[in-house]
Amino acid sequence: MTRINRVVEKMNEAGLNQILVSDPLSIKFLTGTMVYAGERMYVLLIKGNGELVLFANRLFNIEKLPCETVWYSDNENSIELIKERINVSEPLGIDKEWPARFLIPLLDSCSNLKIQLSSDCIDRVRAVKDEDEIEKMKEASRINDMVILKARDHVHEGITEKELAAFIDQEYLNCGADGNSFPAIVSFGKTAADPHHMPDDTVLKDGDVILIDMGCIKDGYCSDMTRTFFYRTTNEKQIFIHDLVRTANETAESVIKPGMRLCDIDAAARNIISDAGYGQYFTHRLGHFIGQAVHEKGDVSSSFTDRVEPGMIFSIEPGVYLPDEFGVRIEDLVLVTEDGCEVLNKVNKKYEIIK
Amino acid sequence: MTRINRVVEKMNEAGLNQILVSDPLSIKFLTGTMVYAGERMYVLLIKGNGELVLFANRLFNIEKLPCETVWYSDNENSIELIKERINVSEPLGIDKEWPARFLIPLLDSCSNLKIQLSSDCIDRVRAVKDEDEIEKMKEASRINDMVILKARDHVHEGITEKELAAFIDQEYLNCGADGNSFPAIVSFGKTAADPHHMPDDTVLKDGDVILIDMGCIKDGYCSDMTRTFFYRTTNEKQIFIHDLVRTANETAESVIKPGMRLCDIDAAARNIISDAGYGQYFTHRLGHFIGQAVHEKGDVSSSFTDRVEPGMIFSIEPGVYLPDEFGVRIEDLVLVTEDGCEVLNKVNKKYEIIK
Repeated sequence: MTRINRVVEKMNEAGLNQILVSDPLSIKFLTGTMVYAGERMYVLLIKGNGELVLFANRLFNIEKLPCETVWYSDNENSIELIKERINVSEPLGIDKEWPARFLIPLLDSCSNLKIQLSSDCIDRVRAVKDEDEIEKMKEASRINDMVILKARDHVHEGITEKELAAFIDQEYLNCGADGNSFPAIVSFGKTAADPHHMPDDTVLKDGDVILIDMGCIKDGYCSDMTRTFFYRTTNEKQIFIHDLVRTANETAESVIKPGMRLCDIDAAARNIISDAGYGQYFTHRLGHFIGQAVHEKGDVSSSFTDRVEPGMIFSIEPGVYLPDEFGVRIEDLVLVTEDGCEVLNKVNKKYEIIK
Repeated sequence: MTRINRVVEKMNEAGLNQILVSDPLSIKFLTGTMVYAGERMYVLLIKGNGELVLFANRLFNIEKLPCETVWYSDNENSIELIKERINVSEPLGIDKEWPARFLIPLLDSCSNLKIQLSSDCIDRVRAVKDEDEIEKMKEASRINDMVILKARDHVHEGITEKELAAFIDQEYLNCGADGNSFPAIVSFGKTAADPHHMPDDTVLKDGDVILIDMGCIKDGYCSDMTRTFFYRTTNEKQIFIHDLVRTANETAESVIKPGMRLCDIDAAARNIISDAGYGQYFTHRLGHFIGQAVHEKGDVSSSFTDRVEPGMIFSIEPGVYLPDEFGVRIEDLVLVTEDGCEVLNKVNKKYEIIK
């Protein structure tokens, strides 16, 4: 079944006969066409019969039009062009990312138009990868595995977080990636207690943990992994927390099966950390979906009750963050198979002391 | 007058007593606090009396709270928390970038709530830079001037567009910038006929134009410039177009004065190109505002009739793009002064043949 047909099926389930798609990666997923629209309007209208209409600025460079295209210029009212092509007396599905600067004028122009969020119709299709996508995701993770080992080997006295992050970016290019999928998080010592720390001029010192959360893009698909190393020396507490987080990671990966709820994977990891008395320091969801974007719709969290399906790819990334001390996170991407999962990252997870 | 007071003044002019700000750079501009919220909700409510309420996820790491803060967790309904703090019987201003996944639930929750776009209340304040911002913008352009000369000197036989773009990124870091402000556009020969070309594996060859559009970030402020060089040889047509585009650039910069309309600057450049018979090949606006973001609200275009004010900083970037042949663009940033403008980029604009 084509991707469009899979989306139309979801539209029928949601009772929608027309939806607007504005996420450029969703449009690429459905039509093969990628446009960097910047602040200009770029949307795909999908009708219940599978008909597609693309709305594009004349400035966009689209080599091969994937479907009927309505062009507009900077001095035209693009919202009115959409209004002409929708049925204003039927509910219209709206992309979750569509900015207010388009949505409010549309609502002002079409009084009584009923709108509802409809991105799930596409996001649930994007969540289950096809073979071509799986191959690309594996390749992006293969490069990520390679580069994190280079980063580990590059660690040396006097290096700063920013320098190690810049090294990773350069190695991605050297190893054939198209770039990073997000700015790498590199945290030394206490800064690792902030799960989203941005690399700064902190200099590495003996006894620090080194938390590296990194990912690259290859052929339009993303990787994402985290490892936490120790520098030169360590102590019992660091080792205990590292073993605990690794056990949570490995336990979660071992329970994954099609048909179970995603929230139950989160619980499997969280229970291990909570039972050890560190539940309050595991402050985020266990994982997120990933594909063309590094964060796609779908969580591995206590509130996400969707069922696991073969072909889904998401992260498993438990962490423990001790304020003013240190933090440990261990993250892999996993691909759900018919009877379990395949872990896409092959790099050792047991703690390592970099000398 | 403080930035908040300037915004409240604009709110009064717009007849708004409450606005929601979601652009993280606007929140940083007003409060000094920067948060990378990702897909999570992060908004600042500004009331007509200057009162501020920040809505933030408990996961965000905000060292020093700038104002009253309403925290929410991933499993809480953050929209309901906003509803509790607004006056649902008065119009509510909405940020132009606020995504539908927040706006639609808010509208569903508050029936009859009147909304209107209100970003202009802040964007018009952001458009006029204060002294501290001007210093940072000058520094970012100083680095940009330095790095484009290094890029020019790095051009050599066999280099690809991607390699030259990667060199620029690395030199930004070497020269003290925090990174690029957008992925550099590097176009060789025919690829320069697409104004938004993304660097690819095209190899430089004799007779190519080399169009480089690049910018960096330093201390939170952006630079942006374009120069077009020739490689080894050139011809009369390339020289004619280059001179034409440079004349358009310099003419536009010479007419800038406080009080005039921005559209009239666009016309000054466009008339020169049109009079030479190339108007149809100058396919975009003359310029855009810039500051914390590389594209900020405000155009130098035929449809933007706002008046020029001292302290505004925007780009002047005429271009001519000849399909299947080549393209030329020459871009500076300019700072409006009391009686004209200061051009922030000092790099030579006359055509240069790189040997």
